[in-house]
Amino acid sequence: MRVLAIDPGYGRCGVAVLERENGKKETLLYSACIQTSKDTEFTARLGIVADECTRLAKKYKPDALAMEKLYFSTNQKTVMRVAEVRGALIQLATSLGIPVFEYTPGEIKSAAGGSGRADKQQIAKMLHALVKIEKEIKYDDEYDAIAVGVTHWARHRH
Amino acid sequence: MRVLAIDPGYGRCGVAVLERENGKKETLLYSACIQTSKDTEFTARLGIVADECTRLAKKYKPDALAMEKLYFSTNQKTVMRVAEVRGALIQLATSLGIPVFEYTPGEIKSAAGGSGRADKQQIAKMLHALVKIEKEIKYDDEYDAIAVGVTHWARHRH
Repeated sequence: MRVLAIDPGYGRCGVAVLERENGKKETLLYSACIQTSKDTEFTARLGIVADECTRLAKKYKPDALAMEKLYFSTNQKTVMRVAEVRGALIQLATSLGIPVFEYTPGEIKSAAGGSGRADKQQIAKMLHALVKIEKEIKYDDEYDAIAVGVTHWARHRH
Repeated sequence: MRVLAIDPGYGRCGVAVLERENGKKETLLYSACIQTSKDTEFTARLGIVADECTRLAKKYKPDALAMEKLYFSTNQKTVMRVAEVRGALIQLATSLGIPVFEYTPGEIKSAAGGSGRADKQQIAKMLHALVKIEKEIKYDDEYDAIAVGVTHWARHRH
């Protein structure tokens, strides 16, 4: 079973592919932070993120796409643009027949961070304990995506 | 020159295809209100809207996709879901090589409604004066989409 986990964004978008086999620890197959330039128009930035996620979906053939869902923020315009990225990802997953699951920041924090009061570093440590990670993780966005994947499996145990 | 104009939504989505030839009045080639059921999951509703818009884009081969852009509303969750629909539409247009243009409700009202204080009925009358409409318009959502198309051309005169 594989999940393509995404922390959606148009400037920085964390992506992770996690695999799970019966009785084994979850394994990180791939992670990255897709980055686009401020100088690029929004529609093109959305296209870059969507194209890269399409490539990953076709390469890794995940059984699910899991994403963070965010409704409220102090920066309404950013949240709306991120929602547009989410919509593009929902559309591409649906067109490839991959079911989509969304989790709130609270759900992700409690699945990946334990107490809910954990900071970034503690969450990273927790994720290394939960998931077999053999590559170097450069970006926080990658950990955010891995946390989304861990949340997905915490909620789909069978 | 053709524009695929959309008033985005997941419950009701107004779509219109307008054509413009030099020296002639704009003509409505197609309009409809795509409707999806409340009993259908959001991702599937988004898929229905996106698939129908993809079909129209492939059939009519528009030079532009124009949409209403909405950032603020009293119902934040609805606005966010509509943003996701918008993102899916941006993605499908971009993947077909069709440039995307977004207009605010204010821009649309002033292009299609004249005074900005016009009500629905006055806007419908105005749209009939601006565009050659030979079919019966059943839904307000169709007028909303036609208004988006009119706005697009008011801003792209040449």
